[in-house]
Amino acid sequence: MPDDRERHRPTRADVRMRGFADRVSVEQATRWIDAQARILADEEIDAADGAGRVLALAVKTKRDLPSEDRAGEDGYAIRAGETIGAADYNPLPFVLGSPDRVLPPGAAVPIVSGAALPAGSDAVLPFEAAQPSQGTLEIYAPVAPGSGVERRARQAAAGTVLIEKGRRLHAQDVGLIASIGLGRVRAVRQPRIVLISAGPKTSGGCEVQDADEPMLRTLVRRDGGVVVHVASQVGTRAAMVEAMTTHEADAVLVAGRTGTGADDEAPMALAEAGELAIHGVALRPGGSAGMGLVRGAPVVLLPGDPLACLCAYEMIAGRLIRSLGGLDPEPRDRCRVVEVGRKIVSAVGLVDICQVRLVGDRAEPVGSGESVGLLPAVRADGFVVVPAPMEGYAPGARVVMYAYGEAGTAGRNGERER
Amino acid sequence: MPDDRERHRPTRADVRMRGFADRVSVEQATRWIDAQARILADEEIDAADGAGRVLALAVKTKRDLPSEDRAGEDGYAIRAGETIGAADYNPLPFVLGSPDRVLPPGAAVPIVSGAALPAGSDAVLPFEAAQPSQGTLEIYAPVAPGSGVERRARQAAAGTVLIEKGRRLHAQDVGLIASIGLGRVRAVRQPRIVLISAGPKTSGGCEVQDADEPMLRTLVRRDGGVVVHVASQVGTRAAMVEAMTTHEADAVLVAGRTGTGADDEAPMALAEAGELAIHGVALRPGGSAGMGLVRGAPVVLLPGDPLACLCAYEMIAGRLIRSLGGLDPEPRDRCRVVEVGRKIVSAVGLVDICQVRLVGDRAEPVGSGESVGLLPAVRADGFVVVPAPMEGYAPGARVVMYAYGEAGTAGRNGERER
Repeated sequence: MPDDRERHRPTRADVRMRGFADRVSVEQATRWIDAQARILADEEIDAADGAGRVLALAVKTKRDLPSEDRAGEDGYAIRAGETIGAADYNPLPFVLGSPDRVLPPGAAVPIVSGAALPAGSDAVLPFEAAQPSQGTLEIYAPVAPGSGVERRARQAAAGTVLIEKGRRLHAQDVGLIASIGLGRVRAVRQPRIVLISAGPKTSGGCEVQDADEPMLRTLVRRDGGVVVHVASQVGTRAAMVEAMTTHEADAVLVAGRTGTGADDEAPMALAEAGELAIHGVALRPGGSAGMGLVRGAPVVLLPGDPLACLCAYEMIAGRLIRSLGGLDPEPRDRCRVVEVGRKIVSAVGLVDICQVRLVGDRAEPVGSGESVGLLPAVRADGFVVVPAPMEGYAPGARVVMYAYGEAGTAGRNGERER
Repeated sequence: MPDDRERHRPTRADVRMRGFADRVSVEQATRWIDAQARILADEEIDAADGAGRVLALAVKTKRDLPSEDRAGEDGYAIRAGETIGAADYNPLPFVLGSPDRVLPPGAAVPIVSGAALPAGSDAVLPFEAAQPSQGTLEIYAPVAPGSGVERRARQAAAGTVLIEKGRRLHAQDVGLIASIGLGRVRAVRQPRIVLISAGPKTSGGCEVQDADEPMLRTLVRRDGGVVVHVASQVGTRAAMVEAMTTHEADAVLVAGRTGTGADDEAPMALAEAGELAIHGVALRPGGSAGMGLVRGAPVVLLPGDPLACLCAYEMIAGRLIRSLGGLDPEPRDRCRVVEVGRKIVSAVGLVDICQVRLVGDRAEPVGSGESVGLLPAVRADGFVVVPAPMEGYAPGARVVMYAYGEAGTAGRNGERER
């Protein structure tokens, strides 16, 4: 009998009504993804809108920052040597000068933070240490040379790299770029993603609407991609082939119709439209994921069950989109090491994605490996990846949690919808 | 002489060319902010665009999820009792039925994951355990009752709260809401922010363009706000008063002109347009920050120096915007406990914001308390807040780092620009 079953061993292209005879390891799947994920070309962008974009060319300063000695605080530009001996009960009188290129001896002039020091001055005395009095200024404290002064090039010398290539720009980076007068920078192009969603296949009592499409839109945006086209309710093989081949994209995500049911046409559609490289990954949930190429662009097939879709996205599709856009394929900023609070159970031979919630500082599983539906992920603070050879983690084990963290910004920014 | 100085003790409204005689503590400043930060009213939004929005009303399910027993995987719906004794070398024959409401005895029918179980069946046999053969089906393994079946209400019973009020929606939340057919949800309105920027006051050799405006735009977006109006290069008192009073806003941020220079008109402008409550905070950098009200809306004055602006934003303005929008005023998701790797030095009596970089897992200071310019923040992974009574932290101390984390999404989404 095993021999007979062997003869019926499914081809990779068609597991329908037979089941997966073999699944590739998550490691093999990510290796395939990484081989396809060539970083996209760069483009010039408006620096003020650069937050979240990945710098393709380091930002350098052409000038010293600052480019001359300047006041580091508000006060009076002064010759420090002339303030020796000043004290509360021994005020020294100075001529209250007006701002000029040169400071006369015996004078002090008001200066605002950031202004160039007048020649001759070598310190800025804070306003609190002086008192104007009938055209002169009485000074109540001595000041050391260089005090209150920001020396030329103190922040950075001309030619210094201010922001490294490859950085995803934060608010302060955008500010710094603006401050040196750079209006445009070169950034990695945002991956253009086509999203094809089959929608729920049955009305068997749970999902009545498509969860995958709005969820994937949000995930793609979080990972720096731009959804350029959405094809919804695409259930037949012909419609899938058409959607996969019609639109220009850096990557295509297909949600649904990846399993072993009679109508699970997504892998067949990918084989017809281009090349099905992998179907079936030793991942739970998400084991019916697949991947391949259409006209050179990677296509990731994600299971229709929303939790499986989320997990396969996080492990496979998100990695692809991040890499294309010049980000670290591993979302390290969302990783944190936590202690396991309650036993995490996993199946040997599969990479298990376990939704976890933080109770205090300890991670406790939400739902089980057999969970379906998004509720466990909604109630979780993140997920833990249990490697295939492991049975799980005992309480007290230290594991990496991928935090869901703060949700991305609202709105469909950057998307060019049709 | 001290008596004479006492007579010149500045009013809160005018510290120009005198200096700050008193600054309120950061604690007092945040208390004032928290008192103003009433959560905004809620509004109905399109759930599919809800990522990043804060739920104002819990999402409940009206139905059991799933609403009937259904297949949890692809396979054959079957009576488990009839499979007893099946084995690789003892295949049991079944009638291969067609999908129907009722499963006849001795039959098995293909079923897809998510479909309602036909009456009479109580298990789903995976495709791998059966083999069609001339109109009948040979079954090679027994299956337990309930195996492969997802029971009615297993995910959630009717009336269960699926997503709590107050949550900032993630991708999976958006997916779950869609899956139960909820097209609209109630969310806290996004704070409408008017941004007034004075721009660099001098060409003293460093900032040649305004860093604050693009930086603040990004920060406001990160914290869930929407910049509804930007007034740039607003340097005079009259122009500031006009900008503060012309536009409808939930909060106003003013960047620049807060210090002790002759042209530092922002506090005077706020006093004229409404009420200046606080000017001067024992915070470094950021000590010239201020706050008050114009027509009931809180106004935060941020120093023009970009690093001071960033720090005052993080400690004061960001807290306000987050609270208005229904978020935790403390950005807990960005907090992580780290060990100090190199001594962090701080001034007693001031809350010091120390930019830190992670070297391995340990935080090392970037720049010093006297740093100006954004470069330290650009090179940092986050910042550490050193409380006023402390001189700093020794290596090995465990401190909270506010991680800058992954930058927000690119683009100016959600902003209604003019």
